[in-house]
Amino acid sequence: MFSFDLLARDGEARAGKLLTRHGTIETPSFVPVGTQGAVKSVSLRDLHVIGTQVIIVNSYHLHLQPGEDLIERVGGVHRFTGWEGPLITDSGGFQIFSLGVAKEHGVGKIAPIFPEQRDRGRHFSSKSEKPLVRVDEDGVEFISYLDGSAHRFTPEGIVDIERKLGADIILVLDECTSPFHDYYYTREAMERTHRWATRALEVFRHTSDSTQAILGIVQGGAYRDLREGSARFIAGLGFDGYAIGGSLGRSKKEMYQVLEWTIPFLPHDKPRHLLGVGEIEDIFQVVRRGVDLFDCILPTRMAQTGTFFAKKEDRFRIHILNARFKDDLRPIELGCNCYTCRNYSRAYLRHLFMAKEILAMRLATIHNLHFLELLMRQIRSAIKQRRLAELWREWVIPNDADPYA
Amino acid sequence: MFSFDLLARDGEARAGKLLTRHGTIETPSFVPVGTQGAVKSVSLRDLHVIGTQVIIVNSYHLHLQPGEDLIERVGGVHRFTGWEGPLITDSGGFQIFSLGVAKEHGVGKIAPIFPEQRDRGRHFSSKSEKPLVRVDEDGVEFISYLDGSAHRFTPEGIVDIERKLGADIILVLDECTSPFHDYYYTREAMERTHRWATRALEVFRHTSDSTQAILGIVQGGAYRDLREGSARFIAGLGFDGYAIGGSLGRSKKEMYQVLEWTIPFLPHDKPRHLLGVGEIEDIFQVVRRGVDLFDCILPTRMAQTGTFFAKKEDRFRIHILNARFKDDLRPIELGCNCYTCRNYSRAYLRHLFMAKEILAMRLATIHNLHFLELLMRQIRSAIKQRRLAELWREWVIPNDADPYA
Repeated sequence: MFSFDLLARDGEARAGKLLTRHGTIETPSFVPVGTQGAVKSVSLRDLHVIGTQVIIVNSYHLHLQPGEDLIERVGGVHRFTGWEGPLITDSGGFQIFSLGVAKEHGVGKIAPIFPEQRDRGRHFSSKSEKPLVRVDEDGVEFISYLDGSAHRFTPEGIVDIERKLGADIILVLDECTSPFHDYYYTREAMERTHRWATRALEVFRHTSDSTQAILGIVQGGAYRDLREGSARFIAGLGFDGYAIGGSLGRSKKEMYQVLEWTIPFLPHDKPRHLLGVGEIEDIFQVVRRGVDLFDCILPTRMAQTGTFFAKKEDRFRIHILNARFKDDLRPIELGCNCYTCRNYSRAYLRHLFMAKEILAMRLATIHNLHFLELLMRQIRSAIKQRRLAELWREWVIPNDADPYA
Repeated sequence: MFSFDLLARDGEARAGKLLTRHGTIETPSFVPVGTQGAVKSVSLRDLHVIGTQVIIVNSYHLHLQPGEDLIERVGGVHRFTGWEGPLITDSGGFQIFSLGVAKEHGVGKIAPIFPEQRDRGRHFSSKSEKPLVRVDEDGVEFISYLDGSAHRFTPEGIVDIERKLGADIILVLDECTSPFHDYYYTREAMERTHRWATRALEVFRHTSDSTQAILGIVQGGAYRDLREGSARFIAGLGFDGYAIGGSLGRSKKEMYQVLEWTIPFLPHDKPRHLLGVGEIEDIFQVVRRGVDLFDCILPTRMAQTGTFFAKKEDRFRIHILNARFKDDLRPIELGCNCYTCRNYSRAYLRHLFMAKEILAMRLATIHNLHFLELLMRQIRSAIKQRRLAELWREWVIPNDADPYA
């Protein structure tokens, strides 16, 4: 059970409804990340109150711990986690490669990396002498960060893992290149990813019970002909939707360009998921270019360091540890209706962070997720009213020059 | 505004109502500990849903961070933390001495120490060569664990700090001895504590605006004549209530005996607070001897290690990391109505602890606090029905021999 209805367009931006077995996702939507089967620090009720529509969890992490067999035995990832809404499983391609090849280059998805991505590879010793990841035609071999055991992922094996997990939407295994890989390696990896996608779809179709949808992943780094070729190839395979993965270049400008190269080759009537984007400016930029779903650890990662989203602040952020908040009894954002802003002051939140109370992280996560959910609601209704550019100006101009100029 | 009404008695056990400016506490009551102004990992709403009546926070910790002046400036500890119910501030006597003198002996309140108390002194290096705490007639000097700065607490100074914090019930400064202090030192420290109590009450009476109540603290270690003398002396000063502090001996049996020596000398019409008790067996034992209030970090400390209270289990505990729970879809306790048991399985809770997700600690804390709150409700109604012995047998017999035997 999976369908996607386009409800409205405003330029390339789209508002739609994605129907899954566990409910509907209104798009464009931000997808909170619950890597290990839990969105960091928050409970199911917190997510319900925030209005979270869908979460993405990671097959790689759940494979290592507690294992897909256990999760299947207890009735699947919804039953296991208690999350009853739509759920996506990422294949773990990014995790495997960012902890191996990309790690060698010290970079994440785009270079210079976003601070929030810097630690994604923290589980691996950079001094390790044996390669942590080895790719061949069949798949990829890697070492568990938990116990050093060797694991092999293949396109078919990942589909099997994701079927056992039982998410509504699953992603194929891809090879994720770094911005420092050259054109030739990026092409080689992309072609391998294409062959893997073909194999994954083949096995998915032969074993499908129609409860899950599968997304292909476009690769090709920041090279125009590769992105175009990859989009065309992956779209030609006929997936239920398309994710845009891999290196998005060395700057935001390059990232936006990658989208402009890629999206025209993806079918209009299928959802598009961008992997790993969550900055406010980026959200407007990617939605404007036709992205329907995107996930990012940013709101939870920001929460760990006492950083709160705030509309009127520089870079849309408040660092609560700043001394100017120490006797500030106002909420993080005046008028914000989240649990944190309704009940706690900046002064007290700052104290909680200073005192390293773990409640602090949850309160920050609640605010940050609520903030994005509210923004996405505004974006969806702006698209329906063809007022996205107007909304963007209202948001971005106090911080920057007119983004449409 | 402070009054205490005795509603019922069952032997020495009492059920009562303690009225404070911020609401009523039905006694006997367990008091969750919010050392730094927050009960570890849970929010205000969590406490409301659990039915927590009162919390105790620590003047010593709040003095060091963020400071009583800041808290006074923003309107007091209720306004600062958002907790609107009854609130007690501990003087910090235990913290100062357990991090100094008692630390030298490697012990907490009773010896051998409860595991949950072992870490109370973790902020101090045991290898430090200069003494961390120095007592004289005037007060006590200690080094901040945060920045190494020197601080001096006096009986008068602590009353001033606690007045600025603005709790409903405050405790005087006492010198807390260890079970390994000998009779002579214990007596010397007790006599100093008596002189401090007299000074504290004097300054409290001269500056009181009738919004706060003050509790004296009985000392005297595990020595009968000292406990009796201390109870008589402190009771003679005429406090609003009485706390029983200091060393409670080297075994649970000695702890119960300390209560039997002390309580007969305390006035019947005032509340009695036992500092630092939270084990299920102990709760029955101390309530039976006439204790009205007691606080302990046990439920939150247990939560940090994946330990949940459970009625039918050995020592009333489940260690969720045990492999036998790995695909157990039941809640921690069948029939338990707490948020955790209504929404999460043992299998998933185990996974959260294995994966070191901080949500785990909150879910465990919620269950443990709910469990104690429910027990206390049962104890209060059993006292009113003169059925406390019956309730005790129902709880304890599956685990142990008849405690009344």
